[in-house]
Amino acid sequence: MSEHDMKLVVVGAAGRMGQTLIRIIQETKGAKLHAAVEREGSPFIGKDAGELAGAGFIGVPVTADPLEAFLHADGVLDFTSPAASVNFAGLAAQARIVHVIGTTGCAQADEDKFQAAARHARIVKSGNMSLGVNLLGVLTEQAARALPAAGWDIEVLEMHHKHKVDAPSGTALLLGEAAAKGRGIALKDHSVCVRDGHTGPREAGSIGFATLRGGSVIGEHSVLFAGEGEIVTLSHSAGDRSIFARGAVAAALWAHPQKPGFYTMLDVLGLNS
Amino acid sequence: MSEHDMKLVVVGAAGRMGQTLIRIIQETKGAKLHAAVEREGSPFIGKDAGELAGAGFIGVPVTADPLEAFLHADGVLDFTSPAASVNFAGLAAQARIVHVIGTTGCAQADEDKFQAAARHARIVKSGNMSLGVNLLGVLTEQAARALPAAGWDIEVLEMHHKHKVDAPSGTALLLGEAAAKGRGIALKDHSVCVRDGHTGPREAGSIGFATLRGGSVIGEHSVLFAGEGEIVTLSHSAGDRSIFARGAVAAALWAHPQKPGFYTMLDVLGLNS
Amino acid sequence: MSEHDMKLVVVGAAGRMGQTLIRIIQETKGAKLHAAVEREGSPFIGKDAGELAGAGFIGVPVTADPLEAFLHADGVLDFTSPAASVNFAGLAAQARIVHVIGTTGCAQADEDKFQAAARHARIVKSGNMSLGVNLLGVLTEQAARALPAAGWDIEVLEMHHKHKVDAPSGTALLLGEAAAKGRGIALKDHSVCVRDGHTGPREAGSIGFATLRGGSVIGEHSVLFAGEGEIVTLSHSAGDRSIFARGAVAAALWAHPQKPGFYTMLDVLGLNS
Amino acid sequence: MSEHDMKLVVVGAAGRMGQTLIRIIQETKGAKLHAAVEREGSPFIGKDAGELAGAGFIGVPVTADPLEAFLHADGVLDFTSPAASVNFAGLAAQARIVHVIGTTGCAQADEDKFQAAARHARIVKSGNMSLGVNLLGVLTEQAARALPAAGWDIEVLEMHHKHKVDAPSGTALLLGEAAAKGRGIALKDHSVCVRDGHTGPREAGSIGFATLRGGSVIGEHSVLFAGEGEIVTLSHSAGDRSIFARGAVAAALWAHPQKPGFYTMLDVLGLNS
Repeated sequence: MSEHDMKLVVVGAAGRMGQTLIRIIQETKGAKLHAAVEREGSPFIGKDAGELAGAGFIGVPVTADPLEAFLHADGVLDFTSPAASVNFAGLAAQARIVHVIGTTGCAQADEDKFQAAARHARIVKSGNMSLGVNLLGVLTEQAARALPAAGWDIEVLEMHHKHKVDAPSGTALLLGEAAAKGRGIALKDHSVCVRDGHTGPREAGSIGFATLRGGSVIGEHSVLFAGEGEIVTLSHSAGDRSIFARGAVAAALWAHPQKPGFYTMLDVLGLNS
Repeated sequence: MSEHDMKLVVVGAAGRMGQTLIRIIQETKGAKLHAAVEREGSPFIGKDAGELAGAGFIGVPVTADPLEAFLHADGVLDFTSPAASVNFAGLAAQARIVHVIGTTGCAQADEDKFQAAARHARIVKSGNMSLGVNLLGVLTEQAARALPAAGWDIEVLEMHHKHKVDAPSGTALLLGEAAAKGRGIALKDHSVCVRDGHTGPREAGSIGFATLRGGSVIGEHSVLFAGEGEIVTLSHSAGDRSIFARGAVAAALWAHPQKPGFYTMLDVLGLNS
Repeated sequence: MSEHDMKLVVVGAAGRMGQTLIRIIQETKGAKLHAAVEREGSPFIGKDAGELAGAGFIGVPVTADPLEAFLHADGVLDFTSPAASVNFAGLAAQARIVHVIGTTGCAQADEDKFQAAARHARIVKSGNMSLGVNLLGVLTEQAARALPAAGWDIEVLEMHHKHKVDAPSGTALLLGEAAAKGRGIALKDHSVCVRDGHTGPREAGSIGFATLRGGSVIGEHSVLFAGEGEIVTLSHSAGDRSIFARGAVAAALWAHPQKPGFYTMLDVLGLNS
Repeated sequence: MSEHDMKLVVVGAAGRMGQTLIRIIQETKGAKLHAAVEREGSPFIGKDAGELAGAGFIGVPVTADPLEAFLHADGVLDFTSPAASVNFAGLAAQARIVHVIGTTGCAQADEDKFQAAARHARIVKSGNMSLGVNLLGVLTEQAARALPAAGWDIEVLEMHHKHKVDAPSGTALLLGEAAAKGRGIALKDHSVCVRDGHTGPREAGSIGFATLRGGSVIGEHSVLFAGEGEIVTLSHSAGDRSIFARGAVAAALWAHPQKPGFYTMLDVLGLNS
């Protein structure tokens, strides 16, 4: 670690995601843990953030005071709740630092507040912080735009562990949306999620989804573009839930030298042309 | 070609499958085309079988007389109709030769006649003549027997071209049956062919099917055994419709030195223990 | 077919590629065969191009006169030799039509002549006319640019039939070049084609190649981007050698309404930003 | 947990593998931790085995006395060193219990002692305790026996993380050995590990290896059988290093009701016909 390392605050530090963030920061060159925040009354206040995360003692006690925590920090990593994230965005704007938001379930009113905060903060927000999944979405949209619907059939395949209770996965739908956007169509009018018995021939222009479930698979996604005599397949395989934390740290490092503004993972990937 | 080559008759010689059989025989060491049979009145009677098949002149004119054709032959390759195959089986029994039957849709009465003919003929009959698919079925059954249902989830994935009108494919169901047999369960009570919306967690012991459609894919099948932390996948990919003809010729060569009897592709593969 | 169909000339019409082009034109909406050219003295002059290609009689006799053939045509499809292609480019420029060039092995002097012809002709030239492979190259370059070399390892895997005598395949090298370009490095300084015995840990920033050979595989290529906990894989599978002819016809249809100029398959795909 | 749970001892309890074994036992129905053994002088003696393994307090202090630990146990799980395992095998024989040995690097003299101990103990020993990898080995051997070398090319593909320093992996070689055994040939005379530049056509009967390295991949292995027009692929994917501990616990539960003897994972899988 050097003096020039980006000083990061983890909010929600005692949660599963917070702990993973702390571990990833510890192993990332150019970043260091500046503060770890939990809510008032948490039993973890005062404990060492490194020990909490299973990363050994690092001399950063968990605090309940975000204002103090943000004061000399360079950035905040935040996978908490919409209300908490809105609050943190205001503090990040005051401190004029980076705020990486992986919080999901935000309402439009929340989004408006993030946009307002982005006049002073550098905010990076994404529903899925994995670099790979975000890249796959961009490439899927491009491929769908390049390959004419008349000759190329789009299929999305996903596999997850046996405990998952819904299908297709949110990421599969996100990839389907990217494909539909590339095609200039609405996914809801063209998706096919069920094939069983007499289906008839495949409808041209439709986007099919197929779902596998089993074992402890964390997440496998493929988008297939099947033409006459050739197939292009774009895939992502998640082997480890830490990829979201890694993406968030990468986003913070990317945003550090940027101007205040509202960014997504596509900006981080340099793909937001 | 040598004197010791197995002399093969192709029945239904002018059909798509008959033509493929003729081409495959021509390129297979140890086999040669002895005769090519079409039904009485076919416009192809008298034409050269090789030219018909796009394999160049070979000096074997198509004939309408199977009795004569079988007389000095060593085997017959037959992808015709149930009624025709029953007739050919009788002739093959008289001639005491090999009869490879790829005909589908046979009734129990037809099967009984094949069994009767097998007292004198060496009959090899299978619903799918591909060596690879038959092997995959055997391996699937073994894997399903070896891996306990409590910890290992079975999924069958298939992909076919956009023109296919039913799902899952017959081969996918055959693989599902093999898995169910290995587990000692009935497929119909445990198969899951639809997953869409709120599915709930995967039911232990079920066998899932997922279907992809697109482009000109001839046939891709995978059986996944997903356990905690590991997956075993057994797959077959068909690149070419000639694999059924190749399997039939391989079956004929295998059956040549056998005793009269009724065999399947598992015998040909040496896997019918 | 309608009056508005694009009128295409196939040069080298009796060759394997020429025949495939003729068949693909026949089945492509919006295109029709206008003329089929072979060189002076070919035994196929005067024969029907459709019958030659196994597509049935179409009333277009093979001719040895390209000038006449190009006169009222809209485009030329050309997988011949450098010298012949240079000649055809001159004629296409005179006729102010589309010239799709899939010819390989051209020298810089040839390329200069194609560029000159492109002042009047609409020329589309590419070393590989498959839409899918060209798309894969573009996506590979983008992914390599987006994913930092420090955390993402690039590997190129290819499989071809048992008769192929060199490794890695030209397309695998092309994909490696695309990845290197995205990374801003020279492939030759960073490629690793052999791993056997004690290799030591993988060198960061290198681009690995692995080669499979077997059966009758036409061509499978994958580019893997392996990060911590996640992998992005971009793949192409060729099931059929007709994909190059299909790509050429698609290129011709795309170029028809364009201005004179020199284009590549990336323009056809709309990816040449 | 019930009275009838199999009572298991973990030796080498404080090591990485020992800790994983303790966690897996805790979550496996029908098994419970009876004792945890470390060597004399270990700083972990007296500490709670569950807390040590990150599984919470379970009331089993680590002990240095294997004799006492084995006395009322039903089985021992052992991934230690050859000398330690030989000693434990003797104690297991005295106690007439199950001894699962995942220790590697044993000499023939060690193996002889395991065989001697197996007159009274039920020993299960394997170089790789993963159920999936062992199954893959058996299926590979069968497939290699069933598919004639003349028409089917065997290739082994593996991928591991960027830190791995040798190639091909031990498991890839084990799969190659299984294929060679099925073919009745010696792997060393037929393996091809390098393809680069002008290779010439693939030699019939050879077994090819290809190696990918990147990211944090734990272990992916595929055996391809490539024939004319079809490919059979048998694959294993490891997502988690716990699979070896899971396999060991499964082996212990399987061996519990068996007669004394020397077994392998193939017996556990019911595949040792």
